[in-house]
Amino acid sequence: MNSAFPPIPSFIILEQRAKKNIEKMARKAEISGVRFRPHFKTHQSAEVSAWFREAGVGCATVSSAGMAAFFADAGWNDLTIAFPVNVLESEQIGNLASRISLSVLVEDPFTIRELARRLASHPGCRTLGLWIKVDTGYHRTGIDFRNHQKIAECLSEASRHPLFTIKGLLTHAGHSYLLHDKKEKQELFRTTAEKMSQLRNSFSHEYSLEISVGDTPTCTAADSFKGVDEVRPGNFVYFDAQQLALGSCGENEIAAVITVPVAAVHEDRKKIIIYGGAVHLSKQEHEEGHFGYAVTWNGSSPGHLDRNNRLVSLSQEHGIVKIEGSFPRIDPGDLMAIIPVHSCLAANLLKDQTIIISGEV
Amino acid sequence: MNSAFPPIPSFIILEQRAKKNIEKMARKAEISGVRFRPHFKTHQSAEVSAWFREAGVGCATVSSAGMAAFFADAGWNDLTIAFPVNVLESEQIGNLASRISLSVLVEDPFTIRELARRLASHPGCRTLGLWIKVDTGYHRTGIDFRNHQKIAECLSEASRHPLFTIKGLLTHAGHSYLLHDKKEKQELFRTTAEKMSQLRNSFSHEYSLEISVGDTPTCTAADSFKGVDEVRPGNFVYFDAQQLALGSCGENEIAAVITVPVAAVHEDRKKIIIYGGAVHLSKQEHEEGHFGYAVTWNGSSPGHLDRNNRLVSLSQEHGIVKIEGSFPRIDPGDLMAIIPVHSCLAANLLKDQTIIISGEV
Repeated sequence: MNSAFPPIPSFIILEQRAKKNIEKMARKAEISGVRFRPHFKTHQSAEVSAWFREAGVGCATVSSAGMAAFFADAGWNDLTIAFPVNVLESEQIGNLASRISLSVLVEDPFTIRELARRLASHPGCRTLGLWIKVDTGYHRTGIDFRNHQKIAECLSEASRHPLFTIKGLLTHAGHSYLLHDKKEKQELFRTTAEKMSQLRNSFSHEYSLEISVGDTPTCTAADSFKGVDEVRPGNFVYFDAQQLALGSCGENEIAAVITVPVAAVHEDRKKIIIYGGAVHLSKQEHEEGHFGYAVTWNGSSPGHLDRNNRLVSLSQEHGIVKIEGSFPRIDPGDLMAIIPVHSCLAANLLKDQTIIISGEV
Repeated sequence: MNSAFPPIPSFIILEQRAKKNIEKMARKAEISGVRFRPHFKTHQSAEVSAWFREAGVGCATVSSAGMAAFFADAGWNDLTIAFPVNVLESEQIGNLASRISLSVLVEDPFTIRELARRLASHPGCRTLGLWIKVDTGYHRTGIDFRNHQKIAECLSEASRHPLFTIKGLLTHAGHSYLLHDKKEKQELFRTTAEKMSQLRNSFSHEYSLEISVGDTPTCTAADSFKGVDEVRPGNFVYFDAQQLALGSCGENEIAAVITVPVAAVHEDRKKIIIYGGAVHLSKQEHEEGHFGYAVTWNGSSPGHLDRNNRLVSLSQEHGIVKIEGSFPRIDPGDLMAIIPVHSCLAANLLKDQTIIISGEV
């Protein structure tokens, strides 16, 4: 029953589903009158980026200078590197800022001075956008939103260097990944926008600042993006088992699976050994304590999800699927599909082994 | 104090240490009179494989047909793909077996028949080695060593096809990764060899079978490899934080670190944000509940390990290092080094960003 293609672990993009996900988010941003700057670290694909362009998107977010160069080469001329700027890559950043409209994130005056010093001698770099990275509760990095003094120091330092254009205040409410209730996520979007808006007001006498927010859980939950200037979700293009658990998507909105050959079947233990391991799927663990769901694969679409069939163990290339729900007979040499826990990490691992399925699913 | 090179997260191989690790294992195998077939999935590097050749090693283990092709191109002409054979890659396997001495793993008669059927029409493939994959207690995959009937069925099926050369019985005692005591690991090596030897004896009237074992914890702990024909450890070339915890190596035998730029410093929280995430280090968690140790980096060697300085959180590109021991002042744009939890996974992720440091450390 399983097609025998592809013969090695592969990242399968279900084009129709991905396009629907893009369209939905793009329309929500449009109706809200908010700039949509999707995060491209999820797919890292020029082909997928073209689907965003078809949906009217003209700018994007990336997470490294290398990724910015990749998408600049693919024709994207307005990019934000949403990572505290790596000053060691100042030259590459200067090169990029000479060709496209580029912004980076900063969160301390020292780095701003350092960046200015290193870019001063760059022959082509005339301007670089700066966003102040603000921590509104996730506590990964950024300046605490209550620390007005440090934010003021950054704004002041940035304005000393004519090279820089101050863009505004940016945050990532990554603590949304702990919320399962839609109302709680909507509330987090609202309170994040409010914190950022109050912060902007504190500086409005001196600076004209935009507000940029974005993460897939709150951006899928929110009915409107009003109150901010820009949203930057990324994962929603594919979704995954993590987002499914959070209620960000339904099963039929998941637009990426990893197909894997069956290597051995242990019927007595109800276990299937797959050729698919940490080097294909990543060791990102699901909150339920597994590495993804196993479903059937018919050559063009994944079968219905039974959450009792799980990838319970992963080593470098081996995976062990435990079948505790129903699953049709399968033999070594057949394919099955895995719904990954974190599609971004699997997409990154299988960048060179990605297949787009364009038919309806 | 930190050199500013390399500017992006990089896998650093400390050549002198790696060569010592190779030499030590190669000599132990030589003294034991046992074939050394190191697992190359750890490094996946032609350059590192040349160090094995310099140490007198002439054969190797890999974990996929693609990796076998890579090392065949690098001049290795005797390889075992230590993974239950993926029959979907029969054509590539046939191509490889036409150029080099190649063996694969099997664990059920169905797959053996299927492989024979698919290879029957291959124009150049005259012979392919088969190892019966035996489970001696790890329970990942393989035939239970007490299931003589199934092993007999496999041997019988394999001997029906003139294409196949039956090599012997192969096991991976991966449960060694749970053992911290050297004596326990030595005991596991001994009992594994004993189980395999008894199994061989059961079939010695009909088949001439070799015994292949190998995993880094038991192979580093064992004083001698007597009792088996072949050992296949891989990780020992670099070791890592996991092997350090198991007592497989000392701090100064760890031959690979990942250098990462500092992106931000949160002195109040004693946290350093690094440009280094799951896409560089993998989300393999240490038994102590972290993703690696942070040490200083002076441009050519890692500083002394303080186990209180740990990489406590990892997202796609961000890492958070918590400093609870001593650590010199460090600023954004400086480099630090991470001792990875699992060097094989980090080496795989940073294959295109690997640097060899050849000086003494």
